[in-house]
Amino acid sequence: MAVVSEMHKEEHLGSSVFITDIVIGMSDGLTVPFALAAGLSGAVQSNTVVITAGIAEIVAGSIAMGLGGYLAGKTAQEHFQSELKREYNEVESLPDKEKEEVKLVFEQYGLSETLQDNIADELAKDKDKWVDFMMKFELGLEKPDANRARNSAATIGISYIIGGLIPLTAYFFTKTPFEGLIISTLLTVICLFLFGYFKSKITGQPPVKGAVKVTLIGVTAAAAAFLVAKLFNNLI
Amino acid sequence: MAVVSEMHKEEHLGSSVFITDIVIGMSDGLTVPFALAAGLSGAVQSNTVVITAGIAEIVAGSIAMGLGGYLAGKTAQEHFQSELKREYNEVESLPDKEKEEVKLVFEQYGLSETLQDNIADELAKDKDKWVDFMMKFELGLEKPDANRARNSAATIGISYIIGGLIPLTAYFFTKTPFEGLIISTLLTVICLFLFGYFKSKITGQPPVKGAVKVTLIGVTAAAAAFLVAKLFNNLI
Repeated sequence: MAVVSEMHKEEHLGSSVFITDIVIGMSDGLTVPFALAAGLSGAVQSNTVVITAGIAEIVAGSIAMGLGGYLAGKTAQEHFQSELKREYNEVESLPDKEKEEVKLVFEQYGLSETLQDNIADELAKDKDKWVDFMMKFELGLEKPDANRARNSAATIGISYIIGGLIPLTAYFFTKTPFEGLIISTLLTVICLFLFGYFKSKITGQPPVKGAVKVTLIGVTAAAAAFLVAKLFNNLI
Repeated sequence: MAVVSEMHKEEHLGSSVFITDIVIGMSDGLTVPFALAAGLSGAVQSNTVVITAGIAEIVAGSIAMGLGGYLAGKTAQEHFQSELKREYNEVESLPDKEKEEVKLVFEQYGLSETLQDNIADELAKDKDKWVDFMMKFELGLEKPDANRARNSAATIGISYIIGGLIPLTAYFFTKTPFEGLIISTLLTVICLFLFGYFKSKITGQPPVKGAVKVTLIGVTAAAAAFLVAKLFNNLI
């Protein structure tokens, strides 16, 4: 398993962090702008309004997703650094307490007291590795990669824009929102299925099932937005 | 640290998983519908269109977020179960290989070969705990809670709806999109700041800094959506 999972990781890191981000951003971008445009197309008479709203959503959504992701990444990094500093302090000033905590980790897996003591003593010989161990096994924190968080946020944001433009193109080349809706739905369902398929393949899920899920979310969101917008427009 | 972090966890689990979900859903709901409405208010003449688009976005966004979160939770659960089954099979059929993998985990922390052997041998005495160990320490997988994923998705989706309705109310009680924009911005900035503050407090970040970040994302998204929608409308 270690070998297999290492291979998975390497494969993942080598070929496809970038591609994963693109696919995630695009399949999300396809969903909400598509559903918003579908919703509006049942309630307004002008393709221009549908496109304007769609573009405003794409801008808003990509910034919320990109900037939000970037700032969340920075927060995670600050959190990691402050916990790291705290662990170093504790290992320096309260080594016995920290050793007890190492022992607690192994007590829950039924290891004998003697073995717990030996592990704690050996770990304590190298402070860096001791702190590494505490960060990962006690606190469950992995060192976040600052550059990757920033690049990911940018890639996801840009892919959201491209994904969001796909359902909107249909409203450019048709005369009424209703015609736009038909073409947009056909186009987007095909794209949602394809992106859902690749997304699942890349993240190691069954691809057809994953493709159906992604498509289902998009179609449900669009149908609900259409119905609610129509209802609201009939009421006022 | 174990004690502190356990307390954190308990505090977190006891009082506030539900509240965390509400705050996350609301602060996200405030952002995109607010920005979309702001964007449209610079490009259309009717409050009804702004509100219709806002409602369509809220429906689409809450379903994408809620249903998307629910299905992602189910996928994570299936993934955990299939990995669990695989680990049990491997522990049964290739115990020596699995012991080597236990040893690898501790080799990277500089533990001696003898100690690595002892740990692997003791762990191997209880298959359930051995598999638990492999799941967590080798694969980094925690058992996902099915009910919590479903409840979280529902809470976040509903809170997104409530959060999204806040910026829209301003367009109900004003006569022009421009008036609506002014009131909506005032109202939403206050709410973004408050929700950002609570969100950061609950997730253990510096609250004022977190509040500024959440507000900044919302305002940037709204300003960009406004400019791009206006530009697009002037071009066509």
